[in-house]
Amino acid sequence: MMAPVEIVDLVIEARWLVPVDPPEAVLENYAVAIDHGRILDVLPQSEVAARFSPRQRKRLDQHVLIPGLINLHTHAAMTLLRGLADDRPLMEWLHHHVWPAEAQHVSAQFVHDGTRLACAEMLRGGITCFNDMYFFPGAAADAALASGIRAAIGLITVDFPSNYAADADDYLAKGLAVRDQRLDEPLLSFCLAPHAPYTVGERSFARVLTLAEQIDLPIHLHLHETAHEINDSMERFGMRPIERIRRLGLLSPALIAVHAVHVNAEEIELLAQHGCSVAHCPSSNLKLASGIAPITALSARGINIGLGTDGAASNNRLDLFQEMRLAALLAKEESGRADAINAHRVLHMATLGGARALGLEADIGSIAVGKYADLCAVSLNDIALAPCYDPVSHLTYAVGREHVSDVWVAGRIRVENGQLVENNAPGLIKLALLWQNKIRP
Amino acid sequence: MMAPVEIVDLVIEARWLVPVDPPEAVLENYAVAIDHGRILDVLPQSEVAARFSPRQRKRLDQHVLIPGLINLHTHAAMTLLRGLADDRPLMEWLHHHVWPAEAQHVSAQFVHDGTRLACAEMLRGGITCFNDMYFFPGAAADAALASGIRAAIGLITVDFPSNYAADADDYLAKGLAVRDQRLDEPLLSFCLAPHAPYTVGERSFARVLTLAEQIDLPIHLHLHETAHEINDSMERFGMRPIERIRRLGLLSPALIAVHAVHVNAEEIELLAQHGCSVAHCPSSNLKLASGIAPITALSARGINIGLGTDGAASNNRLDLFQEMRLAALLAKEESGRADAINAHRVLHMATLGGARALGLEADIGSIAVGKYADLCAVSLNDIALAPCYDPVSHLTYAVGREHVSDVWVAGRIRVENGQLVENNAPGLIKLALLWQNKIRP
Repeated sequence: MMAPVEIVDLVIEARWLVPVDPPEAVLENYAVAIDHGRILDVLPQSEVAARFSPRQRKRLDQHVLIPGLINLHTHAAMTLLRGLADDRPLMEWLHHHVWPAEAQHVSAQFVHDGTRLACAEMLRGGITCFNDMYFFPGAAADAALASGIRAAIGLITVDFPSNYAADADDYLAKGLAVRDQRLDEPLLSFCLAPHAPYTVGERSFARVLTLAEQIDLPIHLHLHETAHEINDSMERFGMRPIERIRRLGLLSPALIAVHAVHVNAEEIELLAQHGCSVAHCPSSNLKLASGIAPITALSARGINIGLGTDGAASNNRLDLFQEMRLAALLAKEESGRADAINAHRVLHMATLGGARALGLEADIGSIAVGKYADLCAVSLNDIALAPCYDPVSHLTYAVGREHVSDVWVAGRIRVENGQLVENNAPGLIKLALLWQNKIRP
Repeated sequence: MMAPVEIVDLVIEARWLVPVDPPEAVLENYAVAIDHGRILDVLPQSEVAARFSPRQRKRLDQHVLIPGLINLHTHAAMTLLRGLADDRPLMEWLHHHVWPAEAQHVSAQFVHDGTRLACAEMLRGGITCFNDMYFFPGAAADAALASGIRAAIGLITVDFPSNYAADADDYLAKGLAVRDQRLDEPLLSFCLAPHAPYTVGERSFARVLTLAEQIDLPIHLHLHETAHEINDSMERFGMRPIERIRRLGLLSPALIAVHAVHVNAEEIELLAQHGCSVAHCPSSNLKLASGIAPITALSARGINIGLGTDGAASNNRLDLFQEMRLAALLAKEESGRADAINAHRVLHMATLGGARALGLEADIGSIAVGKYADLCAVSLNDIALAPCYDPVSHLTYAVGREHVSDVWVAGRIRVENGQLVENNAPGLIKLALLWQNKIRP
């Protein structure tokens, strides 16, 4: 007896489907059945008619369908400072340009507007979820919701005052309130976000750790980004930052160590043993002359790795296709092997690796039954992508974000034929120019 | 008395105009007057009406106009092998994939079709001139002419037989015939292209040098790409390749040293003293795990540098915006300074640096009176490019080739509103797929 045909919201049929899990799988002529925002089935196109009657149907004849990309580290609102003062020595850039601009201009409105701009850019480039760390996280959360993108909102803590909060306790109290007010939003999750070992003291780290354990949140922390950070820690604390946060009890599967550029063999072992994740941000690490993270060794040791763009001030793109390409290329450089970190591996980093770091592996990061339909379709029908011997190699080395054709978040279309849906791009550009005129009159 | 108003073919009015020479100039609300394919004047928009009556007028209100980009090193026809076997160890990639595919498939038709595909990709990405090195250069020359792009055609020489030629003399004779038949084509120029020190012997180099001096052509040569190449030369010749070609007399302003990844201080000094140019190919150098060229030191010593994509088999994009971004980012890494090699400097490499290396500085490479109107317009009206504090920083760090709106070669439009003119993109994709099915059935 045949099973009855089921009415579902949407069926997407794609020439190629790369589920990411199982690794290296490339399914040809497969379909995804979606209902109530979740993936109901992944099946050969030939079996769709007997099983599903979709309210809507999308054919992607020349496309590869992948999980929506996950930006594991950004400061979304910093889009408003994109390219403000490039090619400057790091300290001059920070002390004379970025920090003064932030001190003068950052407000809830700045964060809302900058984050809306960032969300639009990310969605159009195939990113369906981002992990944010910035002031006024409530404004960032609201901007993400208004944009229809999934976000992990960082509840930021630093030991110095800002336009946003007075001291570490104030940051944490405000952060927790942001979370309490938005606990029932399915697109939102939260991280505790102590900024960095050099801006957060022992007492604040202890509070963060207690909270992370009580309410089961990941901890989003800049760690070992620059040689200067490590030297500074040696001077102030007599130990390297990883050792210091290990003693504070922060090394755990909850930790997302952002950058991890300067990590020695012993530190790689520590990160592995404690099940930490790393957010690899190759463009930013190059642009600020921080270095190249030893991704081949981190990966070989089984450490979970995601990819991040960092903020637009140090990139200057929120573009994970760019970061995938660069991660694969730089791994070959730092390992000296042309076969290091292949295209499938970087796609894993940009999807399931990010999901796992955020504790969202059950919900996103791969095309699997039961997960949210956070999906990205890439058209390979382009002179720059012909011929195509291997669609996954193309995704890493040849595709640009301009080849993203359609994007869904929880089954809802957010980009269609390369155009944003329900995000007013011309209006966002005008808004950015208004801020530009304020910031650099 | 006022000068009479002059009738000209075209006036382009741009929000920003970056002429590249003088360095770091950014002209706002300027115009370019073009007649008979050449730039007649560069002047404020406010002065156009009194001076010129254009047959055609193009307003670029939200754009930056730059010289057409020059791809200083590629093997254009290798687009047909794009992504054939990525993430393999170098020797396996060459011996088991690329070379067998070339031996089996390369023909005049392969080169013509692959080069047409490459030309279309390059034009749409703002590249108006490329320096090619491949078999069947006559087919490449014809493909370039059919595409309407400027090309420096390499008259290739190697000491082993191929589908194209039997021995070094045969290569050179065929190459010279290719040039003789096309001497009156204004879009074509020629280089002698001895492949590399490890594939070309003393006698062939001597012939190349004689010819280069007799007919005044640049010499396009792979040089110091890998550590292996240098070790091999030490074993075979008891000296490093640069020393060997110095003794052969090839170090001169005519030499385009491609890659120059592994060059020590003494070799940088030699390249500088002899006025050689370097073709920097950062993507390819990373992808094949060759290394990072010491561009900061080469540049500090005043060596002329251009940018190349290399072939699509080792990149896999023919995209100079990508190479500009990577050149700037990697310079910061290899020098350890966030202020190394700024955005203006990489734009110079991608334009005037390439022109100088090809001996075409009088004709192309900057927006200057008397030069050909080889121009590229980039639209900055995009959410990924807002705000814009510095259009040149955007060109390097934020712009993708998808932002190229219009491209002219010798005053003739080749890309309009992002679409190829007179190049049949769907037809080229079909052609590429036919080749794909032959190469990997």
